[in-house]
Amino acid sequence: MRRLQVSEIAPEMRLGPQETRHLQVLRLRPGERLQVFDGRGAEAVAVLTEVDAGHALLHLDTGAEAHSRGAETPQPITLAIALLKGDKLADVVRAATELGVSHIQLLVTAHAEARDIGAQKLVRLRRIASEAARQSERRVIPEVLEPVPLGQLTWEGRGLLAHPGSAARVTDLLDWQTPLTLLSGPEGGFSESEVALLRGRGAEAITLGPRILRAETAPLALLGAIAATGV
Amino acid sequence: MRRLQVSEIAPEMRLGPQETRHLQVLRLRPGERLQVFDGRGAEAVAVLTEVDAGHALLHLDTGAEAHSRGAETPQPITLAIALLKGDKLADVVRAATELGVSHIQLLVTAHAEARDIGAQKLVRLRRIASEAARQSERRVIPEVLEPVPLGQLTWEGRGLLAHPGSAARVTDLLDWQTPLTLLSGPEGGFSESEVALLRGRGAEAITLGPRILRAETAPLALLGAIAATGV
Repeated sequence: MRRLQVSEIAPEMRLGPQETRHLQVLRLRPGERLQVFDGRGAEAVAVLTEVDAGHALLHLDTGAEAHSRGAETPQPITLAIALLKGDKLADVVRAATELGVSHIQLLVTAHAEARDIGAQKLVRLRRIASEAARQSERRVIPEVLEPVPLGQLTWEGRGLLAHPGSAARVTDLLDWQTPLTLLSGPEGGFSESEVALLRGRGAEAITLGPRILRAETAPLALLGAIAATGV
Repeated sequence: MRRLQVSEIAPEMRLGPQETRHLQVLRLRPGERLQVFDGRGAEAVAVLTEVDAGHALLHLDTGAEAHSRGAETPQPITLAIALLKGDKLADVVRAATELGVSHIQLLVTAHAEARDIGAQKLVRLRRIASEAARQSERRVIPEVLEPVPLGQLTWEGRGLLAHPGSAARVTDLLDWQTPLTLLSGPEGGFSESEVALLRGRGAEAITLGPRILRAETAPLALLGAIAATGV
């Protein structure tokens, strides 16, 4: 079944020109059933009732079963990641979306060259998150949040920090009682004082093995470890 | 300490023009100590004794301590991966090297478009593995092996296959008694008969969570899960 994002799930859903164009490209005709999702966790089955130049109408299929949690983790995962050079953030956003994060919080850190991210680049990262959510059949599109200085970062629940020399395993710490925030540094890592600050705020250090990982590989290894527990 | 690959670790090591040029670019002078490694697991400390136009000489530092296993896993890990489109294999080879694989066996599979890989492309993948090994400070450079049809693939030890619907966790199966082979499909996955064939040969199915992962994300998630156990 085709999947379509709608602004809100409702008994009757009216689509704008862009989504209608998308339906027409897919050659969908009235009577066709679609999986609709709002990008915030709600998902349902709808029937296409009208499709015309520039507008289309969908009705909720009330006969369809309610959906379960589906592809979402038991508690939301935030990836708090330093600004990275070049196009590396795009790769991280794409793979992190597939691996189940709900928020991507960009960070300004001591060792990162970039102090900010352009508006266009942020729009692009958000589009990548949206496409990746669709491709991995998630009903939540991760929010990509504007960069904040590391000193201003706060989180609810558990904070985890991959740190060389730590022996603790991420899988031993997962209890899903609270949301999870993964802290991931820039090329060159977090500075010592940043690590001290994060640990002072309760972040727990975990291992990713004895090898040096690039800044774009470490968060995916960490998310892979979580995904491989089956959540 | 700088790291340098040599063809063989010996009491006296003579470098060719290319490696010598590399030393000159790094402005290394006689008397300097270097970490040398042969890309097959051996590693030692050496002293640069001569460096001249086109050749250089190193002597083993017999006073240096013998090295431990270092950054290598307790048993070798082979990533057997289907040929992927575009430049995706390059990204997989780079990250898989960081995450500790010792061999990358390319596979020809039913759903992959490519039936072969050009000689130049293979050379490039090997160069990427070599660079990534250096950057992640590994002493083993993973071998990138020419594609074989899936039907001809054999492995020693444990074979693991990420498969939707499986509930087994990779971390519950790791015992490091034998080598490990990770089986990773193309875009579109292994075909049903390929999965049956692999399972018939003893491959165990494991989960990577309920989301659809791209062919280039799945192997890294799996390797990340292994690395996050601290090996």
